Amino acid sequence: MLTFYYASGTCALAPHLALEYAGAPYQAVRIDFASKQQRSADYLRLNPKGRVPALVTEGGVLTETPALLQYIAQSFPQAGLAPLDDAFLLGRANEFNSYLCSTVHVSHAHRMRGYRWVDPEDTHAIEAMKKKVPQTVAENFQLIEDGMLQGPWVLGERFGICDMYLFTLAQWMEADSVDPARFPRVAAHRERMRADPVVIKVLAAQSAAA
Amino acid sequence: MLTFYYASGTCALAPHLALEYAGAPYQAVRIDFASKQQRSADYLRLNPKGRVPALVTEGGVLTETPALLQYIAQSFPQAGLAPLDDAFLLGRANEFNSYLCSTVHVSHAHRMRGYRWVDPEDTHAIEAMKKKVPQTVAENFQLIEDGMLQGPWVLGERFGICDMYLFTLAQWMEADSVDPARFPRVAAHRERMRADPVVIKVLAAQSAAA
Repeated sequence: MLTFYYASGTCALAPHLALEYAGAPYQAVRIDFASKQQRSADYLRLNPKGRVPALVTEGGVLTETPALLQYIAQSFPQAGLAPLDDAFLLGRANEFNSYLCSTVHVSHAHRMRGYRWVDPEDTHAIEAMKKKVPQTVAENFQLIEDGMLQGPWVLGERFGICDMYLFTLAQWMEADSVDPARFPRVAAHRERMRADPVVIKVLAAQSAAA
Repeated sequence: MLTFYYASGTCALAPHLALEYAGAPYQAVRIDFASKQQRSADYLRLNPKGRVPALVTEGGVLTETPALLQYIAQSFPQAGLAPLDDAFLLGRANEFNSYLCSTVHVSHAHRMRGYRWVDPEDTHAIEAMKKKVPQTVAENFQLIEDGMLQGPWVLGERFGICDMYLFTLAQWMEADSVDPARFPRVAAHRERMRADPVVIKVLAAQSAAA
């Protein structure tokens, strides 16, 4: 049995979806960001980074979304969530997931979490960061639209972990003042994901726990 | 034959080291950042992101350091550069590499590449970002020092791709005004890497090409 720690509206949605698609036995535990539970002593013992997601496995705790996605795919290979035996295709999957975590998520984080990179009291710098988010996030999605999303799924015909991660971050476009209509292929991918019973189930479970 | 595009002083050092440790047949091509060669039409055709590293394989082009590291490890399994068959240990490796790309490298980038996230003309915001880099980079290395680096190598007794990536980013500490003496385990790891003939060879090759 795996124990999965998440917060609603975060990138933890991606591995949450992967656990469901994999048919993994798991218990989901919601971390309440409003009461700063991610900084509580109990949670910091589990994950010293004070972030989500975190996955407690028999071997120990794992963190970082791309790592969790591949771990879940590899632990439940019958679900076929990643091209594990093809070094190049798995490289493509990891290239995509690395871009999301190191570039797209980081662009987005400058809207609400600018305090990570400047003095939180420096309102000018905080606002300067917020102001550029619509541009940087749009540039990132343009690259995805133009080639990284092969269609219909990220890696082509084969659905998998990259789709769950893309869907998760694409949910944030409107809040980042990016018009999804500018990226029709990404938008169509998002709609297909939203209509999927597994996605509906996981989003409902996260809402019910909130 | 693989073709590997890199620039000196960048995170491309990590996969460059991996290619050498793997004994991979490859040709290294230096991209000159001073003349903005990474934004040239020829290079953008190869890698629309306009960044390094990029690796041209028989299947196509791969980018993003964590993806390249795992691709090289998986393509040359006899070198034993990653625990490919153990989902948890590979998860640990990917957790470490994801942290480096999405957090440590990003903290560092706010010193020289703040223009990515604010208007480049906004000198106040650019300086505000630079100012916090010593603190954020030090906090990141503190987490590595306190637990992520198991010792003697990142994953314990087994040397591999995480060590090449950690060494690469740890080289930037002094430039980020972070004193390596605060992180004795990271500093000792860096010294062991620096003394390794493969590291010496790759650093010399990058210098000779510059």
